[in-house]
Amino acid sequence: MHFEMTEDQQAFAETARQFAEQELAPFAAQWDRDHTFPVDTIKKAGELGFCGLYTPEEQGGLGLSRLDSSIIFEQLATGCTTTTAMLTIHNMATWMIATWGQDDVKATWCDELVAGNKLASYCLTEPGSGSDAASLKTSAKEQDGGYVLNGSKVFISGAGSTDVLVVMARTGGDGPKGISAFAVPADAEGITYGKPEEKMGWNAQPTRMITFEDVKLEKSWRLGKEGEGFKMAMQGLDGGRINIATCSIGTAQTALNVARDYMQEREQFGKPIASFQALQFKLADMATELVAARQLVRLAASKLDNKHADATTYCAMAKRFATDVGFNVCNDALQLHGGYGYIKEYPLERFVRDVRVHQILEGTNEIMRVIIGRRLIMDEREVL
Amino acid sequence: MHFEMTEDQQAFAETARQFAEQELAPFAAQWDRDHTFPVDTIKKAGELGFCGLYTPEEQGGLGLSRLDSSIIFEQLATGCTTTTAMLTIHNMATWMIATWGQDDVKATWCDELVAGNKLASYCLTEPGSGSDAASLKTSAKEQDGGYVLNGSKVFISGAGSTDVLVVMARTGGDGPKGISAFAVPADAEGITYGKPEEKMGWNAQPTRMITFEDVKLEKSWRLGKEGEGFKMAMQGLDGGRINIATCSIGTAQTALNVARDYMQEREQFGKPIASFQALQFKLADMATELVAARQLVRLAASKLDNKHADATTYCAMAKRFATDVGFNVCNDALQLHGGYGYIKEYPLERFVRDVRVHQILEGTNEIMRVIIGRRLIMDEREVL
Amino acid sequence: MHFEMTEDQQAFAETARQFAEQELAPFAAQWDRDHTFPVDTIKKAGELGFCGLYTPEEQGGLGLSRLDSSIIFEQLATGCTTTTAMLTIHNMATWMIATWGQDDVKATWCDELVAGNKLASYCLTEPGSGSDAASLKTSAKEQDGGYVLNGSKVFISGAGSTDVLVVMARTGGDGPKGISAFAVPADAEGITYGKPEEKMGWNAQPTRMITFEDVKLEKSWRLGKEGEGFKMAMQGLDGGRINIATCSIGTAQTALNVARDYMQEREQFGKPIASFQALQFKLADMATELVAARQLVRLAASKLDNKHADATTYCAMAKRFATDVGFNVCNDALQLHGGYGYIKEYPLERFVRDVRVHQILEGTNEIMRVIIGRRLIMDEREVL
Amino acid sequence: MHFEMTEDQQAFAETARQFAEQELAPFAAQWDRDHTFPVDTIKKAGELGFCGLYTPEEQGGLGLSRLDSSIIFEQLATGCTTTTAMLTIHNMATWMIATWGQDDVKATWCDELVAGNKLASYCLTEPGSGSDAASLKTSAKEQDGGYVLNGSKVFISGAGSTDVLVVMARTGGDGPKGISAFAVPADAEGITYGKPEEKMGWNAQPTRMITFEDVKLEKSWRLGKEGEGFKMAMQGLDGGRINIATCSIGTAQTALNVARDYMQEREQFGKPIASFQALQFKLADMATELVAARQLVRLAASKLDNKHADATTYCAMAKRFATDVGFNVCNDALQLHGGYGYIKEYPLERFVRDVRVHQILEGTNEIMRVIIGRRLIMDEREVL
Repeated sequence: MHFEMTEDQQAFAETARQFAEQELAPFAAQWDRDHTFPVDTIKKAGELGFCGLYTPEEQGGLGLSRLDSSIIFEQLATGCTTTTAMLTIHNMATWMIATWGQDDVKATWCDELVAGNKLASYCLTEPGSGSDAASLKTSAKEQDGGYVLNGSKVFISGAGSTDVLVVMARTGGDGPKGISAFAVPADAEGITYGKPEEKMGWNAQPTRMITFEDVKLEKSWRLGKEGEGFKMAMQGLDGGRINIATCSIGTAQTALNVARDYMQEREQFGKPIASFQALQFKLADMATELVAARQLVRLAASKLDNKHADATTYCAMAKRFATDVGFNVCNDALQLHGGYGYIKEYPLERFVRDVRVHQILEGTNEIMRVIIGRRLIMDEREVL
Repeated sequence: MHFEMTEDQQAFAETARQFAEQELAPFAAQWDRDHTFPVDTIKKAGELGFCGLYTPEEQGGLGLSRLDSSIIFEQLATGCTTTTAMLTIHNMATWMIATWGQDDVKATWCDELVAGNKLASYCLTEPGSGSDAASLKTSAKEQDGGYVLNGSKVFISGAGSTDVLVVMARTGGDGPKGISAFAVPADAEGITYGKPEEKMGWNAQPTRMITFEDVKLEKSWRLGKEGEGFKMAMQGLDGGRINIATCSIGTAQTALNVARDYMQEREQFGKPIASFQALQFKLADMATELVAARQLVRLAASKLDNKHADATTYCAMAKRFATDVGFNVCNDALQLHGGYGYIKEYPLERFVRDVRVHQILEGTNEIMRVIIGRRLIMDEREVL
Repeated sequence: MHFEMTEDQQAFAETARQFAEQELAPFAAQWDRDHTFPVDTIKKAGELGFCGLYTPEEQGGLGLSRLDSSIIFEQLATGCTTTTAMLTIHNMATWMIATWGQDDVKATWCDELVAGNKLASYCLTEPGSGSDAASLKTSAKEQDGGYVLNGSKVFISGAGSTDVLVVMARTGGDGPKGISAFAVPADAEGITYGKPEEKMGWNAQPTRMITFEDVKLEKSWRLGKEGEGFKMAMQGLDGGRINIATCSIGTAQTALNVARDYMQEREQFGKPIASFQALQFKLADMATELVAARQLVRLAASKLDNKHADATTYCAMAKRFATDVGFNVCNDALQLHGGYGYIKEYPLERFVRDVRVHQILEGTNEIMRVIIGRRLIMDEREVL
Repeated sequence: MHFEMTEDQQAFAETARQFAEQELAPFAAQWDRDHTFPVDTIKKAGELGFCGLYTPEEQGGLGLSRLDSSIIFEQLATGCTTTTAMLTIHNMATWMIATWGQDDVKATWCDELVAGNKLASYCLTEPGSGSDAASLKTSAKEQDGGYVLNGSKVFISGAGSTDVLVVMARTGGDGPKGISAFAVPADAEGITYGKPEEKMGWNAQPTRMITFEDVKLEKSWRLGKEGEGFKMAMQGLDGGRINIATCSIGTAQTALNVARDYMQEREQFGKPIASFQALQFKLADMATELVAARQLVRLAASKLDNKHADATTYCAMAKRFATDVGFNVCNDALQLHGGYGYIKEYPLERFVRDVRVHQILEGTNEIMRVIIGRRLIMDEREVL
């Protein structure tokens, strides 16, 4: 057991930190205000390898572990939560294509995706199936040596601005085993995009509904075998949950730092508010929970890297705990700023709005509890 | 001891509920989106007496108790948090003018304020004095039989769109006893208004900085005696804290109702999510905390009505507890909506953004703890 | 709506406070240590009417409301949690006999119970039916113009030291409607008592298992009609939940007072620990939650007095909230004492051990959430 | 970064687990009930090396890291909280003697302490100096080539049954730099022991006051240099805090396992209570927090092993978080048992009573917050 970063990890983290400081942090507030999707910035991130962190090297990725990737994403998120979150989704979808794609699909997409020249969306959720993802209704029926795709997906990050969609659709009967995954060009005929959703936060990326009407899919676009789509989607999500948890950690670290600095500068009753014991205690608790959450995220990433039998459970734990801690730390940091926390001149209210959705997406924290609880109850093994 | 509403209270509540349902709720989302200050709606509220609820009848108000007023504001807040909050601030400032104003000031303002034709702002907070209000620096120096006002105020609700400003300014030495209060016409020469603050929520009312540069005040504009301004401001705030706590309660009740309805409609895993026990438990806790908070607010209002020696402590307790509960209930209701809670098509994210500031303004909840803690520690009396 | 005590209520409270101060508080630690059941003290309480507070006057009781009773029990609990809790159970059982007993049963028991000369136990829970009380298996089969009682009950407060048992037993089919209630002399042939349970707290009253083996019941011992026993038991519990919630409030008030005094006396770092802001904040939160909980308990009592359609829901809310707050306040007060909170020389650890069971008995707090949640979900009415 | 145990660690853990299962768990309830100090069992632990886990090998210890030691203590604590806690204190005191003792003192004590034939107590706290340890008043004045010790210590674990006392006493002026440490034979003339404290828990070890009246100390009994005693005591406590946090983790793991098993067996409403979603969610949260706490403890242990500049801060974080989580998990496990959680036939109430003191001793959790807060505020470095 060993808790310090390797030299490589330190170097990755430092590169990411600098990128966050120079390319993300100075613009994040503006992107939020103007609802800008910073495609060029993502491309720059791609130049550093951040668009294919755990994509295998054969497909042009860095082939890093999930743990390494988490260390990098955490630093990126200190600069812009939303852009980093989008990057993590792109990484997840890219990894799926690179892992399960057929040769020509990999040839078509991987280099461009890894470079950040093209972007990918992950299309699982439907209007009627959020937490109950396995009940999805979008269908891909075999026809003319290919498939025809019909249905709709909601809350798709990047939709309308990405180039390829990883779509989970039903090729067989009810339930998870009737689902397959496809890499679908975003401009295929029959795909229409809804208006951008107006959201509480995550404004630096568009979220739209997507409708598929008789979209013709080539057979070769299928990822893996028929009926394996749900399993792939869930494997993708194990990593996705670590990633989104990581985005909460990085954001919360910035919130903590900003609050600490503010407390040292802001004076009330004739002294810096940092000198008030009750506020120090609050800050101490924020830092403690944050350090604990970071460790849990890294533990889960490591379990996933090791293909531990309980990796899914650990990922669910990490996602539940770190996104809750992340929200609370940001929200407490806002409170420590008093009225200044509530206005957009300061970043705190944005942090709160941005991390709020992490408790919901990639499986709500309630679904995380279902996963963890089921593992504990069904099983006789201890959780260690 | 008696916990049921009187017939009068029921009638007031019903009128307010209808007003909220017809005049506020249908427009609240739009006002938030467009940053509309609904002046005409406030005027309509004035026609029903809602602009001078606890202003004495001699000054045209309804002369209701704080408890009656809380019952009414709670119903209004079920329709629009921000507009109701603005109304409560207007009520507070109007009450101060009606209570401590000299005759000609009362003659000038009271009828119009009570009618909602003119609006009032409460100007206490300064850039350097938030929680430490008694250290305010804005000065009103005697000159030519009047005063000259210099300084600036921040986070002033309604500023730029209101007609009269209740301004706390220093006429004497340091500390609370050097402060006096004035009713200053909002268009007096030397007053300039900053840009509207961009805020997390409370978008249906403008918040601006105000700068006073050699503003000439007539002696008669002073409220009460010299040196009594801080005491008045604090008395105003006792009621203001009940009011803002009330706004959280009303909003949270709507959030709870909306979440309950959603849980009955939304199906996942083949049944309404209302049938999931863990979600029922969550809803049960939300309702329980909300009912407890409402009672505490009403208790505090009643203590204020009875001029109880500990009224300020009770008001602080009510403000702390009810604004925390209000935020948590709204935030939990958002979570119960999953992804739909995060988008503006549903009201939940607005509720969260709007009630968040209640934990900060009219004394942060940290300052409430200072007030309560001091009372407990200094004193040998029990709190009952 | 009116929140102050009447003069009568003040007088009752004062009498109870004095009784607690003189007859309970000085002995409570010793009773806990020695596992003493203070029968003589209960008799003294009976002389003041505390054994039949809400028993109808016709049966010798004071005929007070549940609200009045709660005010009295709260004061008693400031002196000894466990003895007061036993008193409340005795009051509940006595009220059931006085309300639904047949004339000769009332004649036999009521005067003696109200006087505190004889004591009553409430026998609902069975080894296999805790939260699922309606599934109880103890049977009362008709035979020879009476009934024969067989089965066993667990966790019966006072068992072995009380004189009459209010026993819920099955006279009909499965489910709640097959249950009837009986007033059974505690020394009837065929009744055996288990060893006293060794408990975490509540040591000033014995808790035992009771086994019924062919116990012959006279027909006249039945309370109310056949099949109404469960309904009666639940009605008893509505009040019982207010009572037990009240015991938590009274204990917590003492814990708060003791902690406050300790903080003023105990010095560390050269000053009273009361001067440390973080500890003041803790104390402030304890007091705030406690005041809110007390109000909720009183509201629920009032709803029960008014036979409000939602009385059961309010009682469940009050029980859940007040017993949780009570535990937390006592536990926080222990913490504020540092090492001294952990030793029996101080009362804090006893308070914690005693109030802990309130979160469990008379329906666990989880069952309270089931009751509240079901009401919210099933129904279209708002909770106000 | 690497999160799996080495083979050595696994072997240590397995040995400790077996010891806990065979030598501790079967007797823990009885030791609690009878207030037995299981000296023979500690001797057996000594045979396995558990009395000198991180004592240097030169002094007969195993010379393990703090991380290794934590892994072992955690397994021991699954069997008996109190005995393991006593072992950790003995380990801490033994390590101090082995690290800073002069040669003859090491020769006298180390072998016997490491073997578990003799036991050590750690004597820092005084009646007037709990959290403010540096203000201690016990004096060691130079006299006749040695020292004379006067004063008293409270809450000393093992006192009266141990053989050597590590005593912090004032040899110089006020404040931390006037304090030195000594290894004093427990039977030295002038030492008297108070009655055993009656405590909420930790009954398997005696806790007593110790009074020193003109106790003659030889110069060679001093540990390290004059004036370094406080620094040594604090270094001892860094490890002590990890240890005590570890005891909470081990106990909580058992509580979780016991609750899980109970939920699978206990039926209500016709099915195992494990099937109720709200209880599953509770169990899921308990497990999640526990895993996070364990990681934080191990991180802190590793920081201490690496002599990280912020080791003290990490130890404080681990102690605060893990002892809070430990208490909550045990307390929730009690609740999941309903009435059975409250009686001594089941271990839950003992777990709660035992771990409660971990939030208080070796620096209260409030003092942990002071340490963490001060580090955050004073410093410009980030906590990573």
